Formats: sequence, structure tokens, C-alpha cells
Amino acid sequence: MDINKLGEDGFISFLQSRFNAHLPKNVLAGIGDDCAVIKQSETRAELITSDLLIENEHFTIGQISPEELGHKALSINLSDIAGMGGTPKIALISLGIPKTTDTDWLKRFFSGVQKPAKKYQVHLLGGDLSKSEIIVINVTIIGKAHPKNIRYRNGAIPGDIICTTGPLGNAGAGLKILQEEISLSEKIRFPLIKSQIQPDPHLKIGNSLAKHPEVHAMMDLSDGLAADLSRLITASKVGAIIHVENLPLSLELQEAAKICRWDPHELAISSGEDYCLLLTIERDAFSALQKQCPFPLFAIGEIIKDPKSLTYLDHGKEISPPKGFDHFLNEDMR
Amino acid sequence: MDINKLGEDGFISFLQSRFNAHLPKNVLAGIGDDCAVIKQSETRAELITSDLLIENEHFTIGQISPEELGHKALSINLSDIAGMGGTPKIALISLGIPKTTDTDWLKRFFSGVQKPAKKYQVHLLGGDLSKSEIIVINVTIIGKAHPKNIRYRNGAIPGDIICTTGPLGNAGAGLKILQEEISLSEKIRFPLIKSQIQPDPHLKIGNSLAKHPEVHAMMDLSDGLAADLSRLITASKVGAIIHVENLPLSLELQEAAKICRWDPHELAISSGEDYCLLLTIERDAFSALQKQCPFPLFAIGEIIKDPKSLTYLDHGKEISPPKGFDHFLNEDMR
Repeated sequence: MDINKLGEDGFISFLQSRFNAHLPKNVLAGIGDDCAVIKQSETRAELITSDLLIENEHFTIGQISPEELGHKALSINLSDIAGMGGTPKIALISLGIPKTTDTDWLKRFFSGVQKPAKKYQVHLLGGDLSKSEIIVINVTIIGKAHPKNIRYRNGAIPGDIICTTGPLGNAGAGLKILQEEISLSEKIRFPLIKSQIQPDPHLKIGNSLAKHPEVHAMMDLSDGLAADLSRLITASKVGAIIHVENLPLSLELQEAAKICRWDPHELAISSGEDYCLLLTIERDAFSALQKQCPFPLFAIGEIIKDPKSLTYLDHGKEISPPKGFDHFLNEDMR
Repeated sequence: MDINKLGEDGFISFLQSRFNAHLPKNVLAGIGDDCAVIKQSETRAELITSDLLIENEHFTIGQISPEELGHKALSINLSDIAGMGGTPKIALISLGIPKTTDTDWLKRFFSGVQKPAKKYQVHLLGGDLSKSEIIVINVTIIGKAHPKNIRYRNGAIPGDIICTTGPLGNAGAGLKILQEEISLSEKIRFPLIKSQIQPDPHLKIGNSLAKHPEVHAMMDLSDGLAADLSRLITASKVGAIIHVENLPLSLELQEAAKICRWDPHELAISSGEDYCLLLTIERDAFSALQKQCPFPLFAIGEIIKDPKSLTYLDHGKEISPPKGFDHFLNEDMR
């Protein structure tokens, strides 16, 4: 069977069955969550995540500057640490580049890496430089957290309110604008493209949310709501209902969608790379937590008992489920 | 300036100057050694390493089976842990593969990963799967060691004996046999190709050596003696003399070299991927340590004061220095 029939999630399941069977007791999470988690003491756990960015798959030279690429490569990996409530500490970057790459390109790439590294006090401690036909970037981040203040994607409970910490679809709209070279007023264009090119990981938000016991499950939104929520409910063995009319849409996305005749809800559900957080909160605690938090919490649906059932309602009327991004299954998404 | 003029080492120096300046006190090694090292307590340090393997640069489909590729990908990263005396604990593998990849290929690849993982009790806890035009593999390993039992490449002292823990040039000869499709008797061919395709990291040897205070500097031999020794003496601010007649050559390499008219010493000095260890030992302690060790220690030269001076003597007569492998500087080596 080709991998494009099995898909990314199918393959992760295969790896889980092969490698998660006999893990040591101090491994709190292995393959399948945003980060692997190792308990080091009663008060300290280590979070580890590693992700590839590949030219022509995750980015296109000409659509992103070297600084922006370096910035994004680090930021989207920091987002995995944010998704579990951790604090990033260390980064390693492996880079494959064509032999004709100008050293100025490399210096600009690492200047871009340095910005979020400084902002979030992450130290670049190593990596690898190799020749490659296409640009390949792998970032590994090690972070820490109190074992009690880590949230996994398998913690959702029926009745929980499903929330996001930011608007959805902006990064996907930004990508469409870049790829289709759509001209829009700078006021609309700029924030959407910025969402695509310079995501800011929700580290402080994740850190703060994970301290509340009422937050049951959490992960970052990298592959789009449809794909990521599907992973969350599968891991938690629950189902979900999404109220499409409650999806948080930025004014810029709404404006762009009007002009370009896009369905903004489809973008909010199916497009990836928003890098805000997806979480579930105990129903009775939601309002108080929302008032208390100094950042937005958008309620978009609720967790139900029925395992793997994922329903989208538009003002109460069921709509057909859009697909999320899978690197192998959904060729058309990027 | 193109990266092929600056070279890998030149670029690592640039990164060191940019990122190693303000490291926290608990960082015992940042960019530039086999692993980054973080001290966690008086008795425990963490070692972290991350390396890329890229199709057509590090391996060629058709010359290596999926199992062998998985085996090699993990092993060569374990070798970085061996080079500092550590014990590996955790692995993360990021994989970029063409969308037409058969899942059977992936299963075989991970079967290959599992062999050294089981042998050295390393747990695969995560990673990433992505689409790519060419196969791209990034392995991150996290290991541990007592802070006192870690050896760095900057510890060499004038007078030290330079040693290796295995024969040199076998993997390079194996690569030549594969690339040039040379037919040789199986007795000669098999061990040389095995060295190239299935390296076994010197983890127990590195672990054992690093417990001896007389071992001053250590690293793994991945890019060939010339390149790696040059890195060791640069880091240690010393020089070295190599006695070419003392380079350990396997009988198979000597036989193959005779038949194919290769210079076996050139292979031993310039070709990479032997994945044994390169170390320096206090002169007075060398003989006793060599007798005591249950594995071979080959003395190949000595450390001298003169910084960066690297001299190759053949029975006392200076020979011109061969080049080591640099991914960008020496196009012809692989």
C-alpha cells in the first residue's frame, strides 16, 4: 500500500503499536502527542519535539525570505511545546542546503531563528549542516514543565467545551494570497500573510492554561481544525460537535473571503498553520476561566461521548465535514 | 560567498560565534562537539545530538535496503553519543518521503531502526512524517552520562597519544565497491560493505574509556581521520603528528587495495563513516590502559604544542596531507 493511501495518521498508529508497547515508566508520552514527555522528578518533566520543514512541501523560496523561514522554522516547533503547556529551553537545527547556497542566505536564516529564540529564551545548542538538492530543515526543541502542568491530547471528557486561543483560517488565507498572487489592500493582505509567514507560538497562553485543572486536553493547531480535532478526539476516545457559526474569524479573513469569494468557514476548518491552541475545558468552569484569562478563549463546540464522531453544525443544521490537512492524504490543501 | 567556499567547519565557527556567547552555566557544550551537553545535577548530564541523512548525498536507494538504512540512520547518531562517553536513552526520527513510498518500505525501515534500538535500549518516542521529493531522515538522540565521565574534543594535551578504537578506511572502501560496482571475493567484499552499510556504534567502548581520567579528548570518526582530527586539534588548540605506517588497516582493506590499486592509507586518512572513536590518552598511561582494555586501542600519533599543525609522517618522512570529508568543500570524496 502506498503511504498516500495509509496517510500520516495511519502511519503514526502503526508506529505507536510498534514502539509504544514497552516504554519505561517515566515516559509520560511517546509517539502520538505534540511532544514526547519524560518525567525526571516529581516536579520536573522534559518535553521533546522534532519536526521537518521541506522545500516545495512546507515553503517555497521566493514566497518567504531567509529571515522569515528561520523565524517560522523555530516558531512552529515552539508551538508544539506550547500545545502541552511547557517552556522551551534548547533547540537543535539540522539544515540541508544546496551547495550553491550563499552564506549570506544562511546568516539571514539564522538571524531569523534568533528572534523567537531571544524572545522565548531558547538556546541553540547544536545541529547539523549538510548538502542537499532541496532545502531541508529539522528543528528539535527540548522544553520543561511541572508534570502536573502538562496537558495531553487524550484528556478530553464528554461535556467539555472546545476552545481555540486564536482566530482560524488566517494562515491558510495568507498562503492562498501568496500562491495565487492575489492583490488585496495592504490592510487586509498584511495580517493574513504575516499569520502564514511569521506565526507567534502561544507559549505564555499554553503555559498559563495548563495550570488550570479544568483544562482537560490541549494541543497546537498545525494541520487545521478538522485534522487536529480528529486527532484529539481519537486520542481521548470521545466525539465532538463544532458550531461553525462560532468559529473565530478575523475581520481581515472575512473581508478577503468576500472579495475572493472564498468560504471563510472552510478555510477556518480545513487550512493549517494557525499555530494557536486547541483545548477542552470543563463546562462548568469555562465562563469563569474565560473571564479570568488575559487572552481570548473562543468556544467553538463541545465534546460528546460517541467515539470518533465529529459533527459540524451551522446554526444547528449539520453540514458535510471538510477535510483537514494530511501530508499524504490531501494533496490539494497546499 | 557560497557555502562550498566557506565549508561546514567555517560555518560551524560562524554559528559558534553567534550562539555560544551567552550560554547558561549548566550548558557544558554547545555548538561544535559531537553532542550538546547540559548538566542536570552533580551526577547527571544530558547529551543531545541531531543529524540529517539525505538521499543522494548520504545514501543511494538501490545500494542500501530499507532495513539497512534504518539501522544506519540510528547507529550513526548513536555514535555521536559514543564519542562523548554517554549512554543513549531516547530517539526521535523525522522522515520526509515521496508520496509514492510503499508502506512496506516504511515498515522495513523501522524494522531496521528497531535493531540497534533494542540492542542499546533506546526508545523511539516521536518524530515527524512528511512528504518530500527525496528521502530525508533526521535522527535526534538524547543520552545521559555522569558529568565527570564525558569527554570533549577540546581536551587534548601536548604529549598525548592519539588512538582509534577500530580500523580505518573500511567504510570508505565499502562505498567505493558499491559505487564502482567492483567485483571481489565475498570474503573481502562482505566485511567492507558491512562497515559502510551497518556500522556498529562504539557505545560500550566510549563509555568505558570516558571513565579513565587519562583519556583527555574523544570524538567519533564520521567524516574521516583528516577532517575529524583537524576538528579535535582546532578545538584543543594543539597540533598533531600522525605516523601513517601505524594506521590500523584491516586485512580485507589491504587485500582489496592490492587488487584495485588503491592507496589504503589514503582511504584510512580521507574516507569517512568508520564510526569508531578517535581519542587522546596521556602518554604515560597509554600502555597500561591498552593492556587493561578488553577492546583494541590503536596508537596512530601524538599531540604536539603547535596549534593547528597537522603532520603526516610515513616512517619518519613527511607526506603531503590528504583532505578529509567536508560536505561542501570536497565534492569528490563521496
